[in-house]
Amino acid sequence: MAERTHHCGILNEQHVGEEVILNGWMQKRRDLGGLIFIDLRDRSGQVQVVFSPEVSKEALDIAERVRSEFVLSVKGTIVSRSEGTVNENVPTGKIEVLGKELQIINSAKTPPFSISEDNDINEDVRLKYRYLDLRRPAMQDTMKLRYRITKTIRDFLDAQEFMEIETPMLTKSTPEGARDYLVPSRVHPGHFYALPQSPQLFKQLLMVSGFERYFQVVRCFRDEDLRADRQPEFTQIDIETSFLGQEKLMAMMEELMVQLAQEVRSFSVQTPLPRLTYAEAMDRYGSDKPDTRFGMELLNVSELVKSCGFKVFASTVEGGGEVKALNVKGQAANYSRKDIDVLTDFVKRYGAKGLAWLKLEENELKGPIAKFFNEEEQQGLIQALEGEAGDLFLFVADSKQVVADSLGALRLKLGKDLNLIDESQLNFLWVVDFPLVEFDEDADRYVALHHPFTMPKDEDLELLESNPGEVRAKAYDLVLNGYELGGGSQRIYQRDIQEKMFKTLGFTEEAAKKEFGFLMDAFEYGTPPHGGIALGLDRLVMILAGRNNLRDTIAFPKTASASDLLTNAPSTVSEKQLNELHLAVKLGEEAGQKA
Amino acid sequence: MAERTHHCGILNEQHVGEEVILNGWMQKRRDLGGLIFIDLRDRSGQVQVVFSPEVSKEALDIAERVRSEFVLSVKGTIVSRSEGTVNENVPTGKIEVLGKELQIINSAKTPPFSISEDNDINEDVRLKYRYLDLRRPAMQDTMKLRYRITKTIRDFLDAQEFMEIETPMLTKSTPEGARDYLVPSRVHPGHFYALPQSPQLFKQLLMVSGFERYFQVVRCFRDEDLRADRQPEFTQIDIETSFLGQEKLMAMMEELMVQLAQEVRSFSVQTPLPRLTYAEAMDRYGSDKPDTRFGMELLNVSELVKSCGFKVFASTVEGGGEVKALNVKGQAANYSRKDIDVLTDFVKRYGAKGLAWLKLEENELKGPIAKFFNEEEQQGLIQALEGEAGDLFLFVADSKQVVADSLGALRLKLGKDLNLIDESQLNFLWVVDFPLVEFDEDADRYVALHHPFTMPKDEDLELLESNPGEVRAKAYDLVLNGYELGGGSQRIYQRDIQEKMFKTLGFTEEAAKKEFGFLMDAFEYGTPPHGGIALGLDRLVMILAGRNNLRDTIAFPKTASASDLLTNAPSTVSEKQLNELHLAVKLGEEAGQKA
Repeated sequence: MAERTHHCGILNEQHVGEEVILNGWMQKRRDLGGLIFIDLRDRSGQVQVVFSPEVSKEALDIAERVRSEFVLSVKGTIVSRSEGTVNENVPTGKIEVLGKELQIINSAKTPPFSISEDNDINEDVRLKYRYLDLRRPAMQDTMKLRYRITKTIRDFLDAQEFMEIETPMLTKSTPEGARDYLVPSRVHPGHFYALPQSPQLFKQLLMVSGFERYFQVVRCFRDEDLRADRQPEFTQIDIETSFLGQEKLMAMMEELMVQLAQEVRSFSVQTPLPRLTYAEAMDRYGSDKPDTRFGMELLNVSELVKSCGFKVFASTVEGGGEVKALNVKGQAANYSRKDIDVLTDFVKRYGAKGLAWLKLEENELKGPIAKFFNEEEQQGLIQALEGEAGDLFLFVADSKQVVADSLGALRLKLGKDLNLIDESQLNFLWVVDFPLVEFDEDADRYVALHHPFTMPKDEDLELLESNPGEVRAKAYDLVLNGYELGGGSQRIYQRDIQEKMFKTLGFTEEAAKKEFGFLMDAFEYGTPPHGGIALGLDRLVMILAGRNNLRDTIAFPKTASASDLLTNAPSTVSEKQLNELHLAVKLGEEAGQKA
Repeated sequence: MAERTHHCGILNEQHVGEEVILNGWMQKRRDLGGLIFIDLRDRSGQVQVVFSPEVSKEALDIAERVRSEFVLSVKGTIVSRSEGTVNENVPTGKIEVLGKELQIINSAKTPPFSISEDNDINEDVRLKYRYLDLRRPAMQDTMKLRYRITKTIRDFLDAQEFMEIETPMLTKSTPEGARDYLVPSRVHPGHFYALPQSPQLFKQLLMVSGFERYFQVVRCFRDEDLRADRQPEFTQIDIETSFLGQEKLMAMMEELMVQLAQEVRSFSVQTPLPRLTYAEAMDRYGSDKPDTRFGMELLNVSELVKSCGFKVFASTVEGGGEVKALNVKGQAANYSRKDIDVLTDFVKRYGAKGLAWLKLEENELKGPIAKFFNEEEQQGLIQALEGEAGDLFLFVADSKQVVADSLGALRLKLGKDLNLIDESQLNFLWVVDFPLVEFDEDADRYVALHHPFTMPKDEDLELLESNPGEVRAKAYDLVLNGYELGGGSQRIYQRDIQEKMFKTLGFTEEAAKKEFGFLMDAFEYGTPPHGGIALGLDRLVMILAGRNNLRDTIAFPKTASASDLLTNAPSTVSEKQLNELHLAVKLGEEAGQKA
């Protein structure tokens, strides 16, 4: 094979007259008036090559055998295109290559889908032929963007004197958190490693070791049932610092986001980023990761309706619940009863018992429940909801949690349905002051909202034993366009507080020692104050690339059932392998169904 | 806690007069004449802080309570040291800090070993308290070096237009190669993922996808019994290219090595690097990864001794074996019969039946077998072995393989014992033209010397079916100071050759299709010529850091039994976890012994 002298996509008028050798793939072929035109593609882009009987009969003959995706080596001379044939749409459109020699390096069967076009291809087919899917320009661009984002992050952290340190993949299974992927040990029968859900404990130990500024671009694993924005293995930008404090760490992350947005989207992020407390985010958006690219906030009308004639509202408020509303501006005329029934079904999925509504026509509220409100209450509602003629009000009356979940989700749905979201925006914000723990009814105990190593706020520390539900954490989530980009916290670094925390989570002293004894021991040898953050790289790439499928940001992703359609993983293994691992497979009833 | 203004280790005379706040660990304390001197350490180094009653009685009182490894925050003023107290041995030795305020941020128990000194600490203790071991300056330096090496490699490859692309960790178990670590699937009962031994297939598929230049700093896994220079998880610099060819790839790697050696060792590597064929390396050094920092090559004397009176030699040569010797220069007088007995036992471990020897005194050979050689044979030996008075000749007569193994190992042992190795050298070299396959007596079939995707040399391709043992591969190993830094090859990119290769390795057509069908399918859709290399990062760091224990290059390594002494991984897991994975543990007799 003749070795390339140039890449295809960089050729332009400056190269006219030069003899070049190009290597690449046949993107497209046209036969026209005894000539053959081939678009040759490589990583850099593509260029048109012309084969003619005048230049080389031999090359022309070979060109006739060339089909889509053949791998070619072309030798030729760069010439300007004649006026009428210039193509302004491609960077190489002013020139073409007069093909003098052509070699077919490898042939190709007809691909199962077109490489050049970005039309709707069945995702299972894309995943089975991922090596072809990745040839498509959109996927090439996304992978390049992913690399550029990762490189920008690495360079930024390097400039801030962070060191990348690798932590183990074969680690210990611990309770708390999601389900672990386990790895059976051959040498220690009946023992298992766990793949890390995050390098949390190791990065804290690195702070005990005095590295002060650690980061790692690291694979993490969670064996959970997958949603559209989850993968069993995902990549985390893992960061931990000592002696820095929450404010400086947050400022540093803001600077990183400014740089990333500028670099990959030429978007200017204003700092300091907005901050919402968890309580405020839940109150105004019904979400701890609000999308602030549009308004339509949740408005609390509990006070106004607590004595109204509509029993559902009044009794909810009386029973300790609340009534909140969305004002869907100017949409009264566009939503029929049937349309509102659809929205009612939607909120019911989030636990709401119903969706009440009112329309503001001129200065009067209309709708089946309008009659339950007296004039004062009506004017109060209009004022509270900043109503104008033509607005649609949607109400949910329920427990605080259900109101937040259902109206928060409805707000997002309406934002999308009504095209209220400015897709060009990158709305970064912080959510702070998370609760430290929440009560888990199923487990009948408190569980950590972030993880058990999160430091309580100083002023709430005394509540840790008496009223853990009220304790706020030194935790901060970075949110972008309604996605949680990452979560961080300052960590507990004193053994006594860590012990209290485990007690709060229902660990016996022995259990805490068995699972996390090495960490608590470490705290006794001079542990500095430390804290960090972890950002989801896949999600960050997805948002910055303007895509909406996490799998499109990963070279070889898994399906919703955690399968790799390309290699057919997972697969069965030999009896010998199982014996070496001291394991037997139990295929029970449940297994029979799923297998 | 008062936030630091400066790091300790960077303070010098330019800072005199400045007020600083420092955070760090108490390295050392001396009480002297009513004053307390504390060496405060952080990531950057250390500085001396003086507490005196004149400056602050309060701070002095707190200083009295400070013990080794306490975490401190100090506020003070930088002053010049008086003439007699300047310490030229530390960068901050010309100044000290007059301590005005002192805060104990965290206390510390007495560590199980000294942080400051680099004496011989039991490795199990070091691994159990790895967070303290990593505080030691030597370990801090090694981790920093590891980061710098990795960063240098990443930046080099970025400049060469390589893209880092992440490949899956949860992948498919395949035959060939070492033993896989398996990960049971919860969703697919009885099915398993495998952790990658290398991203070989994925990186080849990325070439099919047209990325052309891929790299990844990637964790790999092998469940093998561990030797001193092996870990169950290790990090690989994984590189693959399309359309580049072997020579250009090798030249690129040489350039990278030049840059690394310069950057981290200020060592100037001359290129092009020496190349040895596999045959030559085995012949001259008895090894495919020769340490060329010293001579003492293996010398073949088979021709000379084939008719001699020493039956062992003559019959070995007659039987198709060979006789080779080392000339241990000038050591005749230093090796007694007893010493040589020790060497004999040593070579027997490598399968040799014995070690014959001769000493050259003046111009005459001495020793029990000297009498079996006539004058002509004696002079022939002396000449062939470049003998001078005082030299010791050591001979092994056996099969080619045993001669290479035993004399190759003996050469290395003597090189070390006799201090022949110049530790300041970095001797890089290539070994090329490896055999494609070798016959595995146990498996009773050919196995790939590198892996089944390695391209045979063009001129040997026709032997693939008729005489596979004679086929040489387009494979190249990069060797440094007697270690294999990495191995690479050009890959098969045609389905028919790949099929022949699998057939040579004893795969049925069905088996090949089942295991590697997706790769062979990919070859039919326009696969470019491609090849790459993978370098062992841990080993590279070990050599460049001048260390001899691979575990010292890894933040959290495992022991020879693949245990993590810090977290106690692997560990038992709950019955619930096993049930979810459809697994039962079988603890048999063998298990009982090991558990």
